[in-house]
Amino acid sequence: MSEPNTDETTRGTGVSRRRAITLAGAGAAGVAGVAVGAGALFGGGDQASATETAAGAVPFHGEHQAGITTPAQDRLHFVAFDVITKDRARLVELLQEWSAAAARMTAGKDAGLIGAVDGVPEAPPDDTGEALGLPPSQLTITVGFGPTLFRDAQGRDRFGIVDKRPAALADLPHFAGDALKPELSGGDICVQACANDPQVAVHAIRNLARIGMGVVSVRWSQLGFGRTSSTSRGQATPRNLFGFKDGTANLKAEDTDLLREQLWAQPGDGPAWMAGGSYLVTRKIRMLVETWDRSPLAEQEMIAGRTKGSGAPLGKRAEFDEPDFTAKGDDGEPVIAETAHVRLAHPDQNDGARLLRRGYNFVDGSDGLGRLDAGLFFIAYQRDPRKQFVPIQTRLARNDAMNEYLRHVSSGLFACPPGVRDAADWWGRALFS
Amino acid sequence: MSEPNTDETTRGTGVSRRRAITLAGAGAAGVAGVAVGAGALFGGGDQASATETAAGAVPFHGEHQAGITTPAQDRLHFVAFDVITKDRARLVELLQEWSAAAARMTAGKDAGLIGAVDGVPEAPPDDTGEALGLPPSQLTITVGFGPTLFRDAQGRDRFGIVDKRPAALADLPHFAGDALKPELSGGDICVQACANDPQVAVHAIRNLARIGMGVVSVRWSQLGFGRTSSTSRGQATPRNLFGFKDGTANLKAEDTDLLREQLWAQPGDGPAWMAGGSYLVTRKIRMLVETWDRSPLAEQEMIAGRTKGSGAPLGKRAEFDEPDFTAKGDDGEPVIAETAHVRLAHPDQNDGARLLRRGYNFVDGSDGLGRLDAGLFFIAYQRDPRKQFVPIQTRLARNDAMNEYLRHVSSGLFACPPGVRDAADWWGRALFS
Repeated sequence: MSEPNTDETTRGTGVSRRRAITLAGAGAAGVAGVAVGAGALFGGGDQASATETAAGAVPFHGEHQAGITTPAQDRLHFVAFDVITKDRARLVELLQEWSAAAARMTAGKDAGLIGAVDGVPEAPPDDTGEALGLPPSQLTITVGFGPTLFRDAQGRDRFGIVDKRPAALADLPHFAGDALKPELSGGDICVQACANDPQVAVHAIRNLARIGMGVVSVRWSQLGFGRTSSTSRGQATPRNLFGFKDGTANLKAEDTDLLREQLWAQPGDGPAWMAGGSYLVTRKIRMLVETWDRSPLAEQEMIAGRTKGSGAPLGKRAEFDEPDFTAKGDDGEPVIAETAHVRLAHPDQNDGARLLRRGYNFVDGSDGLGRLDAGLFFIAYQRDPRKQFVPIQTRLARNDAMNEYLRHVSSGLFACPPGVRDAADWWGRALFS
Repeated sequence: MSEPNTDETTRGTGVSRRRAITLAGAGAAGVAGVAVGAGALFGGGDQASATETAAGAVPFHGEHQAGITTPAQDRLHFVAFDVITKDRARLVELLQEWSAAAARMTAGKDAGLIGAVDGVPEAPPDDTGEALGLPPSQLTITVGFGPTLFRDAQGRDRFGIVDKRPAALADLPHFAGDALKPELSGGDICVQACANDPQVAVHAIRNLARIGMGVVSVRWSQLGFGRTSSTSRGQATPRNLFGFKDGTANLKAEDTDLLREQLWAQPGDGPAWMAGGSYLVTRKIRMLVETWDRSPLAEQEMIAGRTKGSGAPLGKRAEFDEPDFTAKGDDGEPVIAETAHVRLAHPDQNDGARLLRRGYNFVDGSDGLGRLDAGLFFIAYQRDPRKQFVPIQTRLARNDAMNEYLRHVSSGLFACPPGVRDAADWWGRALFS
């Protein structure tokens, strides 16, 4: 492989996935294949415009990590790793390698420096190959550090960074009704891969796991589809598996002032290395859809506090109308019940606290009891979980009428550092330097 | 809801998902939301052409069931049900209700007769709602009947149809290396939902399960992505999670003579009710991707019998070149090893036996041992498994060098009846009449 690297944002020899397949001898047929594949995914209409949007690339380098305010893509592969080495230098080296691989993959290239196709026959390929020929598909890769990376269960400083542990990364309390599975919770490092093609998201996680062999081990992983929140005003509000619009009052990319106030860790908030970062809470929430589906429409709407069709708050006409929590019906009862989800979760009822949510639906087969194992993989970014997720979830866990249909089975908390600035920077540089 | 039914293919009152959301008060904003949603999924290019292709509808009624030779969609939700009633009439009624619901949902409408949005407040909605506003997305719903529907483990005739059990629906033998989990295998009735949007496929399965409450119970279910075989010459050959092109020699929709010979049950093959149907074998095949990723490129290619980049048979230049199983290298050894997957699976090495494969990749979290639980959900349709899947898999199970990296954990066998002809017809009518 002798093609010069013309892309300043990546290291090593740059071979795009499309270019690699052409070089490998598929020639015109291979290129046609790419077009057909993209057509199947993206509608087969105007290929150029498709490439610019759902199939295109999201810049990896920047002030903040991509994958937070990036308009939510349609598919998720999330993984939590345990760090299995005690060697700080190996961990640092991995974070450097990951940063370089992520810059390549988000640009639609192979994960490795050599390339899957023209690698040395005696060596394992530098890319696993299943995304060859697929476009970047708006892939973003977002990394976070869990509390256990700083200090283990015995309180030991694992990598000499315990003094840099942010106070905001305080272990979450137990919430009423929690049914957490330890093997599906926590983790030393998380990686969130979002893309408009699940094969591209899976390829990214898998190659990071491959590169991390001997340093990290997969603790748990989750696939998701059908983003359940919009993170941009250009996106329609999607529906969760209860059939309701979800995330109408979500923090959105356009809310510049609110993002500063509620999303990004600011200088002075805590350790300097987190300035420009954000704190991530994940919750895997099993939804008892079969039970829900047997409940009357009126009860579903009372629990949600919204109408099912339009998503309007009860008593209002349209989705984005502000809910009136003081309104009473002819019977003297509140139009939006005291236990309605929309009331308990609303910023007005939580001292203005908001979250940037970008969760995904999941269906993980069946539960062995004749039901689908389905629900919401909740993802929320925020400036300080102690002031945002924790108080909101405390109220919800105690009072939300929806709890009858929900089971929280997994929980994660991670400090996501600021963006990787350029090819010389890497995830966690300020933390480990 | 007073809109007249103008669609002859469905029963009851016809409300499309798009129409329902508009009626519910979202108005212009709702319609714009649909366009934005479709844009996110299908590239935001030419909406009209997108609607005609990836977002469009596949006819439900016809000579054969859709979802077999239909160009493979990108997403799968597959479910196997146990029938939990002993009442033949209730089972028949369910098959009738399912046929009507499937005709509606594949046309992009609600599952039910009333519609989710304007239903009676005191009753559960007739549709679960999570696909409101989404286009048909080429949804196909394909049904099959397992051996246990005819005769239970004690040999009893469950529904008076044991005399109609096809000989071709003979239980599969144990294959070398099988590690099948009973709770993930078998089933009385299967439903395969394929679509270009996973939310649409999940919605279809979930609503059929909802309608079937008290008659059927979910035994196992599987989500899949990134179709691993093309079923039409217009589709590029996709890649499996080993990074190789898969299904190059697959039966395709255009192979009219071969389809008659190898895919569709013919009059005289067995019981009359199966003429025009096809037999389905499913296998959930865990792929040990971490081990595979550590093996050299040359070894991977030797095992596959193809080059990784182009998919060409070893010793040839392009993917669709015919493999030469007699060619020998300078060392006197066969260019394509005796144990290579492509050799053992090739029709020329199996008395011409072929399969129509339309499997999907899966990632089901992690396995608790630090690895992704990933692989291939294999789906193959054929005229007679005794002459096609069974001999082919027997050879593969004994000799395929790839077996070192594979574990078959689930197996299913189903007789898929011919197509539902019209609104008066239903799945299995000829079987139960």
